[in-house]
Amino acid sequence: MSAYKDEDPRIHGIKTRIRVVPNFPKPGIMFQDITTLLLDPKAFKDTIDLFIERYKGKNISVVAGIEARGFIFGPPIALAIGAKFVPLRKPRKLPGEVIFEEYTLEYGKDRLEMHVGAVEPGEHALVVDDLIATGGTLCAAINLLERVGAEVVECACVIELPDLQGRERLNGTPLYVLLESH
Amino acid sequence: MSAYKDEDPRIHGIKTRIRVVPNFPKPGIMFQDITTLLLDPKAFKDTIDLFIERYKGKNISVVAGIEARGFIFGPPIALAIGAKFVPLRKPRKLPGEVIFEEYTLEYGKDRLEMHVGAVEPGEHALVVDDLIATGGTLCAAINLLERVGAEVVECACVIELPDLQGRERLNGTPLYVLLESH
Repeated sequence: MSAYKDEDPRIHGIKTRIRVVPNFPKPGIMFQDITTLLLDPKAFKDTIDLFIERYKGKNISVVAGIEARGFIFGPPIALAIGAKFVPLRKPRKLPGEVIFEEYTLEYGKDRLEMHVGAVEPGEHALVVDDLIATGGTLCAAINLLERVGAEVVECACVIELPDLQGRERLNGTPLYVLLESH
Repeated sequence: MSAYKDEDPRIHGIKTRIRVVPNFPKPGIMFQDITTLLLDPKAFKDTIDLFIERYKGKNISVVAGIEARGFIFGPPIALAIGAKFVPLRKPRKLPGEVIFEEYTLEYGKDRLEMHVGAVEPGEHALVVDDLIATGGTLCAAINLLERVGAEVVECACVIELPDLQGRERLNGTPLYVLLESH
């Protein structure tokens, strides 16, 4: 963690609001539950403010949020920095023409879709999700945005599970997180 | 529509940003696509501002958003009025103990889940979604909140399909919408 993050007193309050639920969605997984963070208006606002302070004035025109928890954190950032919000969704949810990227899950594959025309070549994009685990979903999001000619400036998550080394799957795209969980 | 809504000049700009996609998700449905609204930072901000102006200072402590598009509109309202955000989710998505309500779809049933302990008795809640069609999902949301002793002050949606008469399924809970689509 950077000195900035260790030093900011808001980080500690945010960390105490993340609930760890053992054995969800299956045995052995320690699920990082951000819904308890959302129940504390001050801690939720601190979370969003930390992202806004980092990205305001940085010429980002696209905030892309990954379904479904990225929809909770992405729009308040987009509104505050004057960017558009682009939802990256599970299959068959977006009504218009889409492009898609497949990514590997522990069992089988899933895919992430983006509307054609939502992002223009040359736009600067931020990708938002609640958590980075293996990095597969974020990697698919980066690929979608780069395929239409956007530059992904950074990925932003509340929580990183650094033991899973997902950061190394992002092909050099910077990653910013508020918290690590081991 | 109320005089206020007809008169507010922001409404027209919002309406022009909703895309109608014919035959999605199946033949005969004219899908109201709010993703195009999200691509216009000013129109998206106007949308959120209209809700904030209505609910600020009204003693609402809970904003409940319905998966997935209610997650896009609910959190910015919650942050601005100092309320908690409570996600109401599809089955098997919430990691903690839940209560659920079933509701009828055109073919079969679905259910909406809420974390136990997220809302306390006596709290004042606002339910947010992008659109009201038949009202089945909103009705399930109201039931969840009322079962834990909360009072649902209002349901807020961007778009109403008044021909489907969903408003009449809300058991007297007020409904506020920005736009109607026939």
